Amino acid sequence: MSAQAVTDSVILERLKSLQISHPDVISHSPVKGSAEWAAELSTTVPTLASVGLTKTLLFKPKTAKTATPTPVLVLAKDSTETSSGAIGKLLELKELRLASEDLIKSVLPSSASKDDVSALALPASPTIDENIHLILDQSLAQSQDQHALHLTSSNTTILLKGQDIKSYLDSISKDNAVRLVDFAELKASAPAPSAPAARPAAKEKKTETKPAAAQEDDEKYNMAIKYKKDEDFSGWYTDVLIKGQMLDYYDISGCYILRPWSYSIWQTIQTWFDDEIKKLGVQDCYFPMFVSNARLEKEKDHIEGFAPEVAWVTKAGKSDLEEPIAIRPTSETVMYPYYAKWINSHRDLPLKLNQWNSVVRWEFKNPQPFLRTREFLWQEGHTAFLTKAEAAKEVMDILELYRKVYTDLLAVPVIPGKKSENEKFAGGDYTTTVEGFIPTTGRGIQGATSHHLGQNFSKMFDISVESPNKDEGRLLAYQNSWGLSTRSLGVMVMVHGDDQGLVLPPRVALQQVVIVPVGLSKGEGKNQGIYDACLNLERELVKVGIRAKADLREGYTPGWKFNDWEMRGVPLRLELGPRDIAANTTLAVRRYDNHKSPMPLSDIGNTVRLYLDEIQKSMLEKAQEKFDTCLKTVTNWDDVVPTLDAKNILVLPWCEGSQCEDDIKERSKSQANKGQAEDNKAPSAGAKSLCIPFDQDRFGKFPEGENQKCVQCGQKAKSWTMFGRRLLADDLIDCLLLK
Amino acid sequence: MSAQAVTDSVILERLKSLQISHPDVISHSPVKGSAEWAAELSTTVPTLASVGLTKTLLFKPKTAKTATPTPVLVLAKDSTETSSGAIGKLLELKELRLASEDLIKSVLPSSASKDDVSALALPASPTIDENIHLILDQSLAQSQDQHALHLTSSNTTILLKGQDIKSYLDSISKDNAVRLVDFAELKASAPAPSAPAARPAAKEKKTETKPAAAQEDDEKYNMAIKYKKDEDFSGWYTDVLIKGQMLDYYDISGCYILRPWSYSIWQTIQTWFDDEIKKLGVQDCYFPMFVSNARLEKEKDHIEGFAPEVAWVTKAGKSDLEEPIAIRPTSETVMYPYYAKWINSHRDLPLKLNQWNSVVRWEFKNPQPFLRTREFLWQEGHTAFLTKAEAAKEVMDILELYRKVYTDLLAVPVIPGKKSENEKFAGGDYTTTVEGFIPTTGRGIQGATSHHLGQNFSKMFDISVESPNKDEGRLLAYQNSWGLSTRSLGVMVMVHGDDQGLVLPPRVALQQVVIVPVGLSKGEGKNQGIYDACLNLERELVKVGIRAKADLREGYTPGWKFNDWEMRGVPLRLELGPRDIAANTTLAVRRYDNHKSPMPLSDIGNTVRLYLDEIQKSMLEKAQEKFDTCLKTVTNWDDVVPTLDAKNILVLPWCEGSQCEDDIKERSKSQANKGQAEDNKAPSAGAKSLCIPFDQDRFGKFPEGENQKCVQCGQKAKSWTMFGRRLLADDLIDCLLLK
Repeated sequence: MSAQAVTDSVILERLKSLQISHPDVISHSPVKGSAEWAAELSTTVPTLASVGLTKTLLFKPKTAKTATPTPVLVLAKDSTETSSGAIGKLLELKELRLASEDLIKSVLPSSASKDDVSALALPASPTIDENIHLILDQSLAQSQDQHALHLTSSNTTILLKGQDIKSYLDSISKDNAVRLVDFAELKASAPAPSAPAARPAAKEKKTETKPAAAQEDDEKYNMAIKYKKDEDFSGWYTDVLIKGQMLDYYDISGCYILRPWSYSIWQTIQTWFDDEIKKLGVQDCYFPMFVSNARLEKEKDHIEGFAPEVAWVTKAGKSDLEEPIAIRPTSETVMYPYYAKWINSHRDLPLKLNQWNSVVRWEFKNPQPFLRTREFLWQEGHTAFLTKAEAAKEVMDILELYRKVYTDLLAVPVIPGKKSENEKFAGGDYTTTVEGFIPTTGRGIQGATSHHLGQNFSKMFDISVESPNKDEGRLLAYQNSWGLSTRSLGVMVMVHGDDQGLVLPPRVALQQVVIVPVGLSKGEGKNQGIYDACLNLERELVKVGIRAKADLREGYTPGWKFNDWEMRGVPLRLELGPRDIAANTTLAVRRYDNHKSPMPLSDIGNTVRLYLDEIQKSMLEKAQEKFDTCLKTVTNWDDVVPTLDAKNILVLPWCEGSQCEDDIKERSKSQANKGQAEDNKAPSAGAKSLCIPFDQDRFGKFPEGENQKCVQCGQKAKSWTMFGRRLLADDLIDCLLLK
Repeated sequence: MSAQAVTDSVILERLKSLQISHPDVISHSPVKGSAEWAAELSTTVPTLASVGLTKTLLFKPKTAKTATPTPVLVLAKDSTETSSGAIGKLLELKELRLASEDLIKSVLPSSASKDDVSALALPASPTIDENIHLILDQSLAQSQDQHALHLTSSNTTILLKGQDIKSYLDSISKDNAVRLVDFAELKASAPAPSAPAARPAAKEKKTETKPAAAQEDDEKYNMAIKYKKDEDFSGWYTDVLIKGQMLDYYDISGCYILRPWSYSIWQTIQTWFDDEIKKLGVQDCYFPMFVSNARLEKEKDHIEGFAPEVAWVTKAGKSDLEEPIAIRPTSETVMYPYYAKWINSHRDLPLKLNQWNSVVRWEFKNPQPFLRTREFLWQEGHTAFLTKAEAAKEVMDILELYRKVYTDLLAVPVIPGKKSENEKFAGGDYTTTVEGFIPTTGRGIQGATSHHLGQNFSKMFDISVESPNKDEGRLLAYQNSWGLSTRSLGVMVMVHGDDQGLVLPPRVALQQVVIVPVGLSKGEGKNQGIYDACLNLERELVKVGIRAKADLREGYTPGWKFNDWEMRGVPLRLELGPRDIAANTTLAVRRYDNHKSPMPLSDIGNTVRLYLDEIQKSMLEKAQEKFDTCLKTVTNWDDVVPTLDAKNILVLPWCEGSQCEDDIKERSKSQANKGQAEDNKAPSAGAKSLCIPFDQDRFGKFPEGENQKCVQCGQKAKSWTMFGRRLLADDLIDCLLLK
C-alpha cells in the first residue's frame, strides 16, 4: 500500500473546508500520559501562568566533632540556582550537605520524609534562631506572584504571595532572623566548584613529567593517604578506596565504579560460593530486573519498608510507558509467582534457585561506598522445601558458607548467631546472621543473613503441592532466602586497612606479590641484569600459580613503588637488587605488618606459596584477637555505657524480650549523651542487639547460673546476647527486604 | 533540639491571624517536577476539566502466510478500554497485535515513529476502505467535549469535539467506512483473555493425578512440541524454549526468565570466555547501570540510533528525580569519560576492561526470546591501545574466541569475516563478525562482533597521552569494543532443535546424561535392584566428571520419561533394565540422531566420556555440512533470487560498493516479490551483505580471474562476499550501538 503523506496544513485545509472551528494549534513536546498533557495545556491557561514553584532545602554544615552543627534552611524559587558552596561561603560554614532524615526530623518534627521539608512547618521562635540559619530567596520574597508551598507534608499544597511568605516566616522567628539572599548576585561573587563530570575536560591543562602519578592534578589521586584511620575514619575509608583503586566515584550520587582491583575480589567470592551452593543442589538462574507495579503491589505490606527507595522507569525513548515499571530492590515478588507456577507436585520440591545480580535501592541517606549504595551487586538465594526440617538445615548450611567467605577468604572474623525478634527480617520466621566488628569505631556490622521464611510467602503466593499422603490435602512450601552483597568488600577494607592504605588478604588479592628492582644504577641498559632477574622470579612464581608481577616501570624510584603497592595493599613485596642476586636471595616484605625477611631464591615458588598461606592465616588471627578483646561480657548495667564508649561489643545475659531490647537502646543512648553533655559531642547511638551467638559456651556459664537475671530488666536471662552500636543505623541492606 | 510538631491547622491558624488571604488548599499527591504539579492544578481549573484525551491504535491481525493482513485502526477516548481480543472477535480477525513500525509507515506515511499514529493523518479515500478497518469509539463520537488529538506527529496537538472528529473521518473515507463501536457493550459480550499474571491464582482448581506434568492445565506445558519446525518456525521456537525449560514468559513484554537450563549454558560460555580474555590481559570490572542525561547527550550523534529505545528512570519512591536517569543501552558513554581520567601516561596503556552485565533496549518491535529482548545479558569489552597495530591484533584475537564459543561450545558453525561499509558499526573504523545460518529459514544471523573504533571515541572523550617521544606531542588512543550476548543461545536452539524439542551439545548441557530404568514390574520394592543399578551407574559417571542423573521418579512410564528428556535435549540417554543388567550392558540413545547402541557397563565412565566428545563433534559436523551445502557461489544475477528462495546464502563476486549493496537489496527484493505477486505471499526481504569472509580461498578463484565482474553492477569484483536474507531486519543487537 502506498499513499501520499499528509501534512499539518493539509489537515488544517480539510478542517476549514468542513467549517470545523478549533482553537489555535498548541505546539508542545510529545505526550501520551495525561499528566504531561495537561501540564502543557496549563501553561497556556492564564490563571496558571502566574503560579510559581518553590523548593525548600535543609543543609548540614561540616563541623568539628566537638561542635553541634547548625543546619541551614533555604526557601527559594524552584528556578533559583541555590549553590550550597556559595551559601556555605556566605555563612562561613564548611561543606554544606543535604541533611539526613534524622536531622530533618529534629528540625521539622512534623516531616514524615525528606519530601516533606517545608519552611512553613518550622517550630516557632525562639527555637529557630538558636538552632537554624533561615535563608529566604530575595527574588521570591519580593515576588507579587502566587507561589506553591507544601504545608507540613507534600500531600497538601498552598498558594502564597512572596511577600506573604516573608511575613509568615518573620512572624515565627525573632527580628531579622530571616536572611534575604540575592542568589544571582551571590553566584557571581562565589562560583560553585566544578562538577566531577567536568574533570576529563580539565585534562588539557595537564602536561606530563615523571613520575606521572605523583602530580595527578585531582587531589583525590595524590600519593599517600591523607587521613589517619583513627582520626577521621570516613575520610580515611574513602581515600583508601580511591587511591587503592578499588573504586572510583561516578557522576550519579550513590553509584560507584567497581574497578578490577575490587571486582576481582567479588569474582573470587562468586566462584567459591557458587561451587559450594551447587554442591548443595542450588541452581543459578536470571530473572528480569524489572517488576510490574501489580507484582510489587501484591506484596504491599512487605514492601512498605523499601517502597520509598524503589526506582521507577516511566519512559522509553520519547514515549511514556502505559504504567511505571519498577527496578527490583529484591526479587521475592519477581520470583515467587513463578515458583507457584512451577511447583505443582511434591516431586517439584525442593526448588533451589540462586541469582547473581544487581539490585537498586534509591537510598536518600548519605551513600557509603560498598556499605550503602544505590545499585549494588549481590547473590540472592530463594529455596522452597516440602518440610520445615529440610529448610531449617539449609539455613544453617548457607550461614556456614557465609562464615567461611568472611574468615577463609576475606580473613575477617565474624560471629554466627540468631537475630532477636526486633532485628529479624520481618517477612520471615527467623533470621540467622554472621556479625562483624569494626575495631576503629567499636561498631558492629552485619555480614550476611540467611532467613527461614516459614510459610509466610508460600501462603501469599500459593506455593503449594498435593501432600504425598492424599488425606493431608494441599501443603504450603517452607521457604528460605539468603543474601550476600559487595558490602563484604567494604568490611574487609575497614578491618584490615591501615594508614598506608589497603591491606589485602592473599587469597583474594588480584595481585599477591609485587617484585621491585632495587639498587639500580643510572644509565641506559645498566640495569638489564636486575630486570631479567625480576622477570625470572615472576615466571617462577606464576608457574606455581601465584599471582605475581614485576614492577619494571621506568622513571619511578623504588621508594615510590613501595609506597604505591603498599597503598594498593599487595600482600607481599619481593625486593631484588645486585646484592640480593649475588646472595641468591630476595628481601620479602609483608604488607600487613611490614615484617622483612630475606628468602633464598632456590625453590622460591613453594617458599612464597607457604608464606602467603601463613600471611592469610595470621591476618585472620590478628583480627580475631582484636575482636575477642573487644567482646566484653557485662553482667552489671552500670558497666554498659562505659564499655560501649570504650569501643567494645557487649555480651549481656538477656531475657530476649522485645520491650527490653527497646529499653536497652533508649537507656544506653540517654545515659551516653548525658555523660557527654558537657564536652558536647555529637549524640551517641544506643546499643542494639547484634545477635544471639550460636556458640553460647565461649562465654562460659552465667555467673549466677540458673538464677541469672537480665542485665536490663531483671527478668530471667535466656542467653548471652551481643549488643553494640551499629556502623549503619539500618543494618539490613543484606536482608532481602529492608525493615 | 526538640520541638512540638506543627499541624496543617496550626499553620492555617497562623495565616488567619496574620490576615494572609489564600485560595482553598489543594489536596494532591506528592509532586516536585513542575509538569506533574501543573497537571494537578489543571484538574482544578474549569477551562481544562472538559478537555478529554484520546488514543489511536493500529493493529495487525494474524493471517495465513498466503494472505495480506488488513490493519485495524482504532480511535478512542484515552479512558476507553479497547480490548484487542474483543475487537478481533468483532471483526472476525485472529490475534490482533500492535503494528510494527514498518506497517505503521505504510498505513500512515507521514508518521515518523510509533508515537505518531494519528487517525487525522490517514490518506484520503478510497485507499482507506480497501486497506484498513477504521474503528471509532462511539462514546468519543457522541461526546460534546473537546478532545485532544495529534496532527501528523506528536509534536502538535489539536482540540476537537467528538462529533467533529467523526465528520472528519467520514469526510476522508467512503460512506459508512467508519465503524462506530460501543466498547463497553463489546467488552461485556467478549471478555478479554486472562493475563498471565492471573495464572498462579488459577491453581486452586488444579488437583493432582499422575503423571503431574502430563495434565498441567496451562497448554504451554502440554507434553510434546505442538508445532513442526519446518511448518511454523516461530511457533516451534517458542514452544521448544518453554517446554525445554530454557525460559519462561514474564509479565513484562520483552523480558524473559532465564531458567537454570539456559542460564547454565551462559555460565559455561562465561567461564570459558573469561579465562581466555584474562590470558590476553583483560580485566573484569563493573560500571553502574545508570547513565546521567548529560553523559548520554555527550555522544548525541552516536546515540541517535538507539535513543528511542532508552529506558528512563524519573522517580524514586514518591519523589521525582531532579533529572531523568537512563539505564545503559551500552556503556561507551558510561566508561570512556573514566578512561580519559585513568589514562594519563603511555604507561597506562593498554587498558583492557570487560564487564558481564545486562543492558536495556526498550525495543518496540515484536520481541523474540534471546534474539530480541528488552533486557539482555552480555559481555562488553572496551580496550585502549597506544598503537593501531596492537588494537588491530586484538580485534582478531577476540573474534577467534567468538568463533570458538560457537563452534567448540555450541557446536554451531559460523563464518568469520569483515562487515561491508554499509553494515559496519557506524561509530568505528571497521567491524568484524562471525556469521551464523539458520537452515530452516535460509536466513543469516550475526553471531558476535568485534569492532576497531580507531580514534573516533578517544577524540570525542579526549583519551590521550603524551607521546613517549616528546616531540610527537599528545597521542589519541586506539580503541576496540567487542560484545557477545545471550542471543547465542537462541541461535544454538534454532540450529540444533528438532520436532521432538531441544537438542543440546554435551559440552554446554547442564545435564549430559539421563539414566532411565526400564522393564519395571508392578508392586512395592520389586524394582529396587534396577534402581540401585541406575544409581550405581550415575555414581560411576559423576566420578569421572560427567553431569549425569538417574530419573527414578515414581509414577512416570519409561516412554513418558524418554519424551520428557528428549524435549529438554539431554544429549545421551542410558536405558537400564533387567536384561541389560544381566548382560552387564546399557542401551545408549543419542538425542541428536536417535542412534541406539548397547554399551558395556565395564569402564562405562570413559566410554561415555569419549562418546559425548564424539556427539559434540558430529553435531558440529552435521550443522557444518548443512551450512556448506546452503552456501552457494553465484556469478550470474539471474540465479540470485531463485537461490535465495531456495533458502540459501549467496557468495557473490562483489565490488564492495555501498551503492551497489543498496541496489542488490532493492533489486533482489522487487524481483522476489514480483515473482510472488500471483500467489501473493507476504513480501520477501531483499538480500543484505552478511560479511566478506576472511577465508576467501574456500570459494576458489574467480571464474574470470582478474577480470571478474561484480554480479550486480559489473564493476571489477574485489571479493567473494556473503549475501543473504536476515533473520532479524536489524541484526545489530550485539553491536555496541544500534544503527
